Amino acid sequence: MELEEIYQLVEEDLAKAKSQIDSVTEVDSPHLAELLQHILGGGKGIRPALTLLAGKFYDYNLDLLLTMATAIELMHTATLVHDDAIDKSPVRRGKPTVNSLWGEERAVLLGDYVFAKAGEFAADTGNLRVIILFSQTLQTISGGEIVQTNDAFKLEQTRDHYLERISGKTASLFSLATVSGAILSQAPEDSIKILKDYGFNLGVAFQIVDDILDFVGTEQEMGKPIGSDLSQGTLTLPAMLLLEQYPDDNPVKELFSNPDMPEKDKQQKIKRAIEMVSRSPIVKQCYQLASDYRAEACRELGKLPDKPSRQALKDLADLVISRKK
Amino acid sequence: MELEEIYQLVEEDLAKAKSQIDSVTEVDSPHLAELLQHILGGGKGIRPALTLLAGKFYDYNLDLLLTMATAIELMHTATLVHDDAIDKSPVRRGKPTVNSLWGEERAVLLGDYVFAKAGEFAADTGNLRVIILFSQTLQTISGGEIVQTNDAFKLEQTRDHYLERISGKTASLFSLATVSGAILSQAPEDSIKILKDYGFNLGVAFQIVDDILDFVGTEQEMGKPIGSDLSQGTLTLPAMLLLEQYPDDNPVKELFSNPDMPEKDKQQKIKRAIEMVSRSPIVKQCYQLASDYRAEACRELGKLPDKPSRQALKDLADLVISRKK
Repeated sequence: MELEEIYQLVEEDLAKAKSQIDSVTEVDSPHLAELLQHILGGGKGIRPALTLLAGKFYDYNLDLLLTMATAIELMHTATLVHDDAIDKSPVRRGKPTVNSLWGEERAVLLGDYVFAKAGEFAADTGNLRVIILFSQTLQTISGGEIVQTNDAFKLEQTRDHYLERISGKTASLFSLATVSGAILSQAPEDSIKILKDYGFNLGVAFQIVDDILDFVGTEQEMGKPIGSDLSQGTLTLPAMLLLEQYPDDNPVKELFSNPDMPEKDKQQKIKRAIEMVSRSPIVKQCYQLASDYRAEACRELGKLPDKPSRQALKDLADLVISRKK
Repeated sequence: MELEEIYQLVEEDLAKAKSQIDSVTEVDSPHLAELLQHILGGGKGIRPALTLLAGKFYDYNLDLLLTMATAIELMHTATLVHDDAIDKSPVRRGKPTVNSLWGEERAVLLGDYVFAKAGEFAADTGNLRVIILFSQTLQTISGGEIVQTNDAFKLEQTRDHYLERISGKTASLFSLATVSGAILSQAPEDSIKILKDYGFNLGVAFQIVDDILDFVGTEQEMGKPIGSDLSQGTLTLPAMLLLEQYPDDNPVKELFSNPDMPEKDKQQKIKRAIEMVSRSPIVKQCYQLASDYRAEACRELGKLPDKPSRQALKDLADLVISRKK
């Protein structure tokens, strides 16, 4: 099943969310407009789709849900702009990054601007519970990243550590996407909880698969270089398992023990790590864990009203596992 | 008159705001706590004082006003952290900057975290008008800075251009401080407008004086190196007047025409510009403009209820002009 099929249920509304996101580029300054046009509208739209789908179980208030879907996609985009600036990443979604085209200064300020715009959309829902959750989620994301800046190029990291990292980085925003859809559609508390947990677990599964694809995907499909986590010194699940299962003569160990090695050697270590992961059972093991989170995400969905969006959420969870990009 | 005397009216409450700001450092992660402790609590507190003083004319709801004062001081702090990261500034408020101690990565993320925390405090007021103004102000500040990144080391800039720049950078947040105090204390619309305009014009005056002090202040009093605007390629009012009044053999012209000159030559040009400004009528002319904005800020204050805070706002406007730091 393709993303487009799952989105069918909210296709028109998702298009409206996209056009609302595009409207953010309508600013007086041509320079600011150019920067905004460069970063907006390029994603898969999974987060806004989650808000809309989660809003389908009760009172589907399109205006409120669109406003929140826009806020969430903007927050996501702003975090990417800052992450790329911090990591000095050259490419994102198949395009040069803001920092590579216009410098880090503009990337930092542009991220700030888009955070603020996102905050204004969140405020426009008029729902204080959602507005507060919005601010708290950004604290979780950025606070989590701060705590983890010390982890770069560290070999001793536990599975729990990894899961905590991706919970903050990805699952928190997926969870905000679904919980806000639930709240804004007047869902009862138990349904809010189910949709929140769905979003959270889906986010964990999504990030595990992202981390797998950073080893076995293609640059063309991913829109960014493969092996980028290793080159940033980020220990993801596949690399962790590689360290555990091949403690001797391990390219990750060599790379992380000597992060200042020449770029050519670095690339060679990364290439070797990718090869080792690809032909080991590690990929399958990682997919197993992602699949466990997919199952956990869907576990309670049956308790929600029997609406088409319930099946769409299940299909989306399957797609999060089977996607190649 | 000293700042402390003016603050007297809200002294206890300002202390409460400061302790609320300090409470932001109480987080689980010792590393995040360390970063937060480093940046919080060091300012003059003029913005939170403005919110409290502006709230004194009608229903002084301390809880709401404290919450908003905290939000505004946090937003201000976050913008400083990002500005220092962008400018690679080594010193702020007499202390090494976050970027110089822990790197740009952490400075960007810390700023994001503090913006988010500020947003949560703003949301905690429960007042949607104030929450939306809060987000819009951050857009004004960061959007303004983006538009102006192209201005660095440009010699052709008008007075209007300069005033627009400092309106976005400083006056917008001063204005948010007073307008939110007015709104949260249930001021009638005409009083809200008067206090908003007061904050805005005071902010312009404040920034003009800041820009003067970057020429005639001392590093010890300012807590940062003198001449920092010139070294960043920022054309402030004193430098603009120097260009106008000494079109030939002008160190600012030389510096801006050749921004990549050796650091030693750069420092020599800056030193010469500072000397030329100091012994010309430029300082007086700049103070005159600041004073015009001070007068404009206070023009309508007489229409507010005759409360002690009215005099405090006038005194504060005087102090903004006479301050040496």
